[in-house]
Amino acid sequence: MTDRTAPTAHPISAIMAERWSPRAFDEARAVSEAELASLLEAARWAASCFNEQPWVFCVARRDANPAEFATLLSCLSENNQGWATRAGALVFGLARQSFAANGNANVMANYDLGQAVAQLALQATAMGLVTHQMRGFDVEKSRVALNVPAGTEPMVAIAIGHRAEASILPEALAAREVAPRARKPPAEFVRLGGF
Amino acid sequence: MTDRTAPTAHPISAIMAERWSPRAFDEARAVSEAELASLLEAARWAASCFNEQPWVFCVARRDANPAEFATLLSCLSENNQGWATRAGALVFGLARQSFAANGNANVMANYDLGQAVAQLALQATAMGLVTHQMRGFDVEKSRVALNVPAGTEPMVAIAIGHRAEASILPEALAAREVAPRARKPPAEFVRLGGF
Repeated sequence: MTDRTAPTAHPISAIMAERWSPRAFDEARAVSEAELASLLEAARWAASCFNEQPWVFCVARRDANPAEFATLLSCLSENNQGWATRAGALVFGLARQSFAANGNANVMANYDLGQAVAQLALQATAMGLVTHQMRGFDVEKSRVALNVPAGTEPMVAIAIGHRAEASILPEALAAREVAPRARKPPAEFVRLGGF
Repeated sequence: MTDRTAPTAHPISAIMAERWSPRAFDEARAVSEAELASLLEAARWAASCFNEQPWVFCVARRDANPAEFATLLSCLSENNQGWATRAGALVFGLARQSFAANGNANVMANYDLGQAVAQLALQATAMGLVTHQMRGFDVEKSRVALNVPAGTEPMVAIAIGHRAEASILPEALAAREVAPRARKPPAEFVRLGGF
């Protein structure tokens, strides 16, 4: 399969250069309970403001939890359902928007969820798995389907599994599996001191 | 120095188990230009919604950019200034709150900044550096000091450097350098299917 390692301008850890979000998932390969446990453990040890750990994960493995997998899948946009149905696991990441201790608003809740999911995604890469994060889901539908409590915000859906050949996808999506990987040059997002 | 490796319940990458936020920084050791470049490169390759890369980093190395370092330091809370003054570099992480292409609100901006900083922090760990993220800074003061444009939100300050012995810190802070590392058990933040 096409090498998707990032063309980095400075040396970075291999798992960061190799982490990438495909849509071609191998339906024949499952995500094991132990694999999912390690992914969630990686998320668990992320940093967070006051160590609040505002993240919650709703999870389902396709082979082991077919009903729950179908529920999570049904919340995705139609386009995302088309390819995510072949993922070995689906995970929704949610963030509690206030501190448990005092109820004050936690402005870092979504930021900290991002940190946790970044660790999950890198852990997946380290284990030979791939992940694809999506905002393309119906937030209100997911609130109902996942019975999300008030004050907790569904932020992201994550497909997890094994990479497959791009050719299993419709043409337009297959092309994105091999398109060059790109990021802004550092000069566009790094400032010495201030703006 | 005390081993700060996390007591993980499932196997995770060493850089994730070892990443930890000290306050004891070694004033005698600098952060090099090449090191900072690799940290920002790690952030650069984080995932983001529509590959928007909403993050901006205002950076200063203590030895190379003393004026800029002093400016960033001055925005921290007094307590944080007390120990962060010994960091080799300070970085402020900011997030553009709308998409560049169409001006629509980007609800994933802070989340994606979190992903980028998580990668920065793990890259630091991989390179033998330590990081400490802080929300303890004066947001309004930083807007002025860093000349932050409207629509961009200062979210986090990050001290980066080399770890020092806890004994360089006042007693209360030194105790936190050796306190047990803890996270909620998975049952508290993982749900099969939904809530």
